Amino acid sequence: MTNTPREYLQENRGRFLEELLEFLRIPSISTDPDHAVSVQSAAEWVAQQIQRAGPFSARIISTVCHPVVYAEWLGAPGAPTVLVYGHYDVQPPDPLDKWLSDPFKPDIREGRIYARGVSDDKGPMFIPIKVAEAFFATTGALPINVKFLFEGEEEIGSPNLEGFIRQNKDLLAADFAMSADGAMWRIDEPSISISSRGLVGLELTLTAASKDLHSGRHGGGVPNPLHALAQLITSLHTHDGRVAVAGFYDRVAELSPEERAAITALPFDESRYLKEVGAPDLFGEPGYSTLERQWVRPTLEINGMWGGYQGPGSKTVTPSEAHAKITCRLVSNQDPRDIQEKVVAHLESHVPPAVRLHIRRSDHGAGAYCIPADHIGLRISEEVLEGVYGKKPLRVRIGGTLPIAEWFQRLLNQHVVFFSFSTADEDFHAPNEFFRIHRLHEGFEAWARYWDRLGEVRTNGRNAE
Amino acid sequence: MTNTPREYLQENRGRFLEELLEFLRIPSISTDPDHAVSVQSAAEWVAQQIQRAGPFSARIISTVCHPVVYAEWLGAPGAPTVLVYGHYDVQPPDPLDKWLSDPFKPDIREGRIYARGVSDDKGPMFIPIKVAEAFFATTGALPINVKFLFEGEEEIGSPNLEGFIRQNKDLLAADFAMSADGAMWRIDEPSISISSRGLVGLELTLTAASKDLHSGRHGGGVPNPLHALAQLITSLHTHDGRVAVAGFYDRVAELSPEERAAITALPFDESRYLKEVGAPDLFGEPGYSTLERQWVRPTLEINGMWGGYQGPGSKTVTPSEAHAKITCRLVSNQDPRDIQEKVVAHLESHVPPAVRLHIRRSDHGAGAYCIPADHIGLRISEEVLEGVYGKKPLRVRIGGTLPIAEWFQRLLNQHVVFFSFSTADEDFHAPNEFFRIHRLHEGFEAWARYWDRLGEVRTNGRNAE
Repeated sequence: MTNTPREYLQENRGRFLEELLEFLRIPSISTDPDHAVSVQSAAEWVAQQIQRAGPFSARIISTVCHPVVYAEWLGAPGAPTVLVYGHYDVQPPDPLDKWLSDPFKPDIREGRIYARGVSDDKGPMFIPIKVAEAFFATTGALPINVKFLFEGEEEIGSPNLEGFIRQNKDLLAADFAMSADGAMWRIDEPSISISSRGLVGLELTLTAASKDLHSGRHGGGVPNPLHALAQLITSLHTHDGRVAVAGFYDRVAELSPEERAAITALPFDESRYLKEVGAPDLFGEPGYSTLERQWVRPTLEINGMWGGYQGPGSKTVTPSEAHAKITCRLVSNQDPRDIQEKVVAHLESHVPPAVRLHIRRSDHGAGAYCIPADHIGLRISEEVLEGVYGKKPLRVRIGGTLPIAEWFQRLLNQHVVFFSFSTADEDFHAPNEFFRIHRLHEGFEAWARYWDRLGEVRTNGRNAE
Repeated sequence: MTNTPREYLQENRGRFLEELLEFLRIPSISTDPDHAVSVQSAAEWVAQQIQRAGPFSARIISTVCHPVVYAEWLGAPGAPTVLVYGHYDVQPPDPLDKWLSDPFKPDIREGRIYARGVSDDKGPMFIPIKVAEAFFATTGALPINVKFLFEGEEEIGSPNLEGFIRQNKDLLAADFAMSADGAMWRIDEPSISISSRGLVGLELTLTAASKDLHSGRHGGGVPNPLHALAQLITSLHTHDGRVAVAGFYDRVAELSPEERAAITALPFDESRYLKEVGAPDLFGEPGYSTLERQWVRPTLEINGMWGGYQGPGSKTVTPSEAHAKITCRLVSNQDPRDIQEKVVAHLESHVPPAVRLHIRRSDHGAGAYCIPADHIGLRISEEVLEGVYGKKPLRVRIGGTLPIAEWFQRLLNQHVVFFSFSTADEDFHAPNEFFRIHRLHEGFEAWARYWDRLGEVRTNGRNAE
């Protein structure tokens, strides 16, 4: 007989796993218009799960693109309110030929679930829904007030969520937010993320001739946009790895010696990391360690570059177009629009001769985020993780971007506690993404403990900190 | 009633056009293994056509890859023997979305046939077969001895033809060769090509991490092979457009002042050409005109370059691989292998930090070619074209590569007369390739006149020059 939410969570593990596998079979690839129906299906699946978990009022709210799933239960007067965030959309699965199993037919091997989106973020966002179910099924109530906000556009930079938040400030009001997205740093150390980097992007096209030309007939006399693209891309960095865009580092605050020391003190073995990624060597901005480069320094990365013939054999063509996709990761006070315009200005002033530059700015961006060191939500998460794992969690940072963090803070005056049970080594955004089944169980345990512990904090105002 | 070959050719134009359209429907893309069966079908189609034309012994001779079609008629003792060359394979049709009609469903619009390979080289190589048919159907014989050699690997650099020629020197013996491949310079001026550039290529891959990585988590700390590729490609040229590979120009002979003057004297309007290609400006090696850059100066061109995400939207990935396809056009005494090794040496010595370079050399190459100014085949072609077009043809050059020219000369001691009726503006190797129907008719007329005129040259030895 089940008495407590944590017992219920243990006893229903088998069913929960089956339900998660069902969720994973929906190819909710938000960036691909061909998969819009699947994204909608995933939203419906999530809303149904919440509705089954307890007396929530779950709603699918349309946006210009993919819908938001919102639900709330506010039956704990006097207790804090948390806004739980996650996303049900996933990255595209390509390159498909590198997957050992179908990305949308989840495969369990050696205690891991392999599927696109299982780690980022379907597995982690599934956890608080099941924890809510466990509370309602056993105690009939949650110890705190909970609002669920699950979006379907995280993997395309959440273009509509900022507007949604701005228009629904009252609906989303809470003491703070808990993000089920974010990923723990390492599998062997419990950790809590205290900051994330921002993001802004653009796509550029260089055009030369109005059509592809025979490189024998025309080669040598007409501009080759691939040569021009290579030059232009090269101009974006110094040879030693700094970003060469004028003003790029202007608003980047240097870390204090204490902050650098804290990062240096973390257990991080560069040679082990190098082995993990499999590159011949590490490479990045001079003067910073790998962790600093990935956590507190901004970057400019080419995510894709193409033009001309890519098929088998050779095709002697001087192409008419060349393309590149660029994203920058931002830190400190770098403003996404400002950085975007600086990159545009650099590109425009470095266009090689005889080609035309066309730029398509991504229509969104996100600033960097950092939670105050003494925030109550942060302190409870440290306490809970120490309880679950038997050791004090490390304070680490996220190299990636959680645009919601900055929006929640700026628009809703809410800080964000990253409380995800995925791990950074789980190949999200890459082939063979996986999630460890034992992390699912640890996540159930930790979220249940967290809500219980937070329920003990009585508050009158909106801000528990 | 038909009396002469030229009358026969006129009267059968309608049927000949239908036959050519049939030929064009065979997607004989030699570079694509998926189309091997079609390449074979095209060879069979050609052999059948020759067999029907007259008492030839047509044979399909296998090579390691695509077959050679060979046929001969040697019933004109004392008359010269010519080896007629052409190719029945075609380039891939991509980018498919730029075609206005299906590349393998020939479409006739405004006196032009639109289809992949119609200009390069199916239309032009079809002509001498029909001219042979016309002679046999009317006079019962050819005025000269003719050997047909049609290959199926020209668009992949004729990897097996050189070996075939070496092994069949007696079979292929002739006074000189006539190439149905090569393209006339312009539609408004009859012209004869006196030289072609050589070709050699390679493909390179840079690898960094062993798999695609999330550019947020890892970006800034691991090498990005796209940045490295851009640097490496940029290093291959100076900013003003010279090839920066050490020794690249070593064996390039400068033109004499007379040769440069002859090129300058040709009717060529750079601004009109610029308009044709549709680029913002022309670009190339400093100190040379556009025609010199395209005819008598060597080049190094990137034909394709790719890596990372190319799909719709964005994908924040730091890819594990980046690729480029390179070809060089060669002139004078540049040796394909030597240039290939010099490019390889350059690449190897310019690899950016923290990435691995892998090079795949193309397994063939071709030197440049030039016919002597007083060659009898050249003189007859000038005479014939003047007769057909009513004006003296220009002596021009080919920027592209006809590897066979160098082989015929070196292995068979045969010079090559380029006698093609395609035109360089017909978008071969590009979308919407076309061939003008009136050029087909002019080609019938010219080849018939040529063979008649050559039949009047009595020779005892193998070399008529």
